Amino acid sequence: MVASPGTAVAADPLPSWRPGAVKQALLSFLAAVTCEGSETVVPEAERVAVFDNDGTLWPEQPLPFQAAFAFAELERAVQRQPALAEDPMVQAALAGDIGALLSGDQFEGLLRVIAVSHAGMSTEAFSAAVEAWLSAARHPHFDRPYEALTYAPMQELLQLLRVHRFRCFIVSGGGADFMRVWVERVYGIPPERVVGSTGRTHFELRDEGGPVLIKSLETLFVNDGAAKPAGIHQFIGRRPLMAFGNSDGDLAMLQYTTINNPRPSFGLLLHHTDAEREYAYDAETRSTGRLVEALRQAPDRGWHVVDMQRDWVRVFTNG
Amino acid sequence: MVASPGTAVAADPLPSWRPGAVKQALLSFLAAVTCEGSETVVPEAERVAVFDNDGTLWPEQPLPFQAAFAFAELERAVQRQPALAEDPMVQAALAGDIGALLSGDQFEGLLRVIAVSHAGMSTEAFSAAVEAWLSAARHPHFDRPYEALTYAPMQELLQLLRVHRFRCFIVSGGGADFMRVWVERVYGIPPERVVGSTGRTHFELRDEGGPVLIKSLETLFVNDGAAKPAGIHQFIGRRPLMAFGNSDGDLAMLQYTTINNPRPSFGLLLHHTDAEREYAYDAETRSTGRLVEALRQAPDRGWHVVDMQRDWVRVFTNG
Repeated sequence: MVASPGTAVAADPLPSWRPGAVKQALLSFLAAVTCEGSETVVPEAERVAVFDNDGTLWPEQPLPFQAAFAFAELERAVQRQPALAEDPMVQAALAGDIGALLSGDQFEGLLRVIAVSHAGMSTEAFSAAVEAWLSAARHPHFDRPYEALTYAPMQELLQLLRVHRFRCFIVSGGGADFMRVWVERVYGIPPERVVGSTGRTHFELRDEGGPVLIKSLETLFVNDGAAKPAGIHQFIGRRPLMAFGNSDGDLAMLQYTTINNPRPSFGLLLHHTDAEREYAYDAETRSTGRLVEALRQAPDRGWHVVDMQRDWVRVFTNG
Repeated sequence: MVASPGTAVAADPLPSWRPGAVKQALLSFLAAVTCEGSETVVPEAERVAVFDNDGTLWPEQPLPFQAAFAFAELERAVQRQPALAEDPMVQAALAGDIGALLSGDQFEGLLRVIAVSHAGMSTEAFSAAVEAWLSAARHPHFDRPYEALTYAPMQELLQLLRVHRFRCFIVSGGGADFMRVWVERVYGIPPERVVGSTGRTHFELRDEGGPVLIKSLETLFVNDGAAKPAGIHQFIGRRPLMAFGNSDGDLAMLQYTTINNPRPSFGLLLHHTDAEREYAYDAETRSTGRLVEALRQAPDRGWHVVDMQRDWVRVFTNG
């Protein structure tokens, strides 16, 4: 509908996207898979789109938002239990040195730090801690609440996909419990469409307070890299038509979505090229979001690459 | 709307349910949580209902359908590899002795049997095996294809809940991959609303054939008993308003749904009382579906109990 010639096109559904190859490809693909009676139309039941979150729907620099939350919680914990600060990984976290945290064998140091803020409490207590942090914290670079920092062009895309009867899922390495507290509010994506990293929870029926689920890091599922297709299979149970990412952690998800898919498919990478309005990074990031191999494969795979500086009119809702 | 007095009520939305306390409670609850402007109305986003599957939406006697599939696959495997039959657990399975399979420590025997049919192949090969079995197999007692054996009263209930803007999820101890092959077809429930037992899958990008996911039984999550609330949290991320089950394996799910829920809530147990039209069992079942403790707690918890012989006009679509 959107792209069909001869139709009086109403308002531009993607006003934050500059005219160009990527915008045209998006609109053409949506027209092709939703045009009833066409050879390329895909039944609504199969219209599934998957989005990475950190660096794809919201920023991931200078630290992923969840790391900022974890470090803030860690500071509060160290005030209560000063002995915690003897752990070198806790020191690295308090210094915001995510490179040190990511360097360890099996991420043991990172897991120790995450355990302080993400395990041993009920799911309700954890949600309350995230809400409390959200209500007070501000992003160190943009000096705005984190909820104000979703990418406006991606919000428009989510909305356009919903209009075209797509079901949009987040497929992120971030913790599902962390994201679910607020992604319905900021993206309109309900909790059951958030696929993230998860640890087992344990059910207890308490005399006072009734049923609770206690968070743990047991059988941790880290939904990143080659695990993303497994997470998609486990939680969604269907191959997506469209996949959106921004790092090598999304490579397998894009491959799974687009290679030998019997349906039309679409892969897209955001390239962070805008040091002025957001950040510019790929191979050399000091945080997460390394992008090398996926970018290298993009031309052969037919994946679209967004140059955020060139392709986006604006990055955030207010600029 | 449905139950409001003074309104001309159109057709009965639950014709397979006999008039009585349970039917009245269902209709009253739905009216209460969906009547706009009332004090009890619940926003659509929170209208989540969870259904056990085996014994709640379809039968589980004389064997759960998935066990029948696994045993049929095992027979085919033994024909190819006769040495398999030396395992006493394989012998028990071939004799249909699910009691022996369930008796072992940590279900090791059961897992060995399940591994033959449920691990080591791609997810696509597994789906094809389930489809092949479905197209030929007939239930040993009813002598009908398995797809014809869903409970008609529960199908009506699923439909009524959808009309009232509920999102209905299956929360079953059965394997998610097994159910997803056909539950969209038979219940209209899409794969992402099927919460079941899952093992890890491993992503491979093959030179020929492209991306595949290989099934394994690693980090097996058995979505039964106290794990059901954890499964609900992990996959749905929201406490349900309504829970439907038929065994002690559903006890924790009903507790999680109904105890201290700040929203109105509804718990229901099917009691298999109809030896003529289906099966009669509770404490003494030789297969799955033991129902003792949940039934004992039902009066105090306010859970509704369906006497299938008395409360259902018919069990299956054709009788």
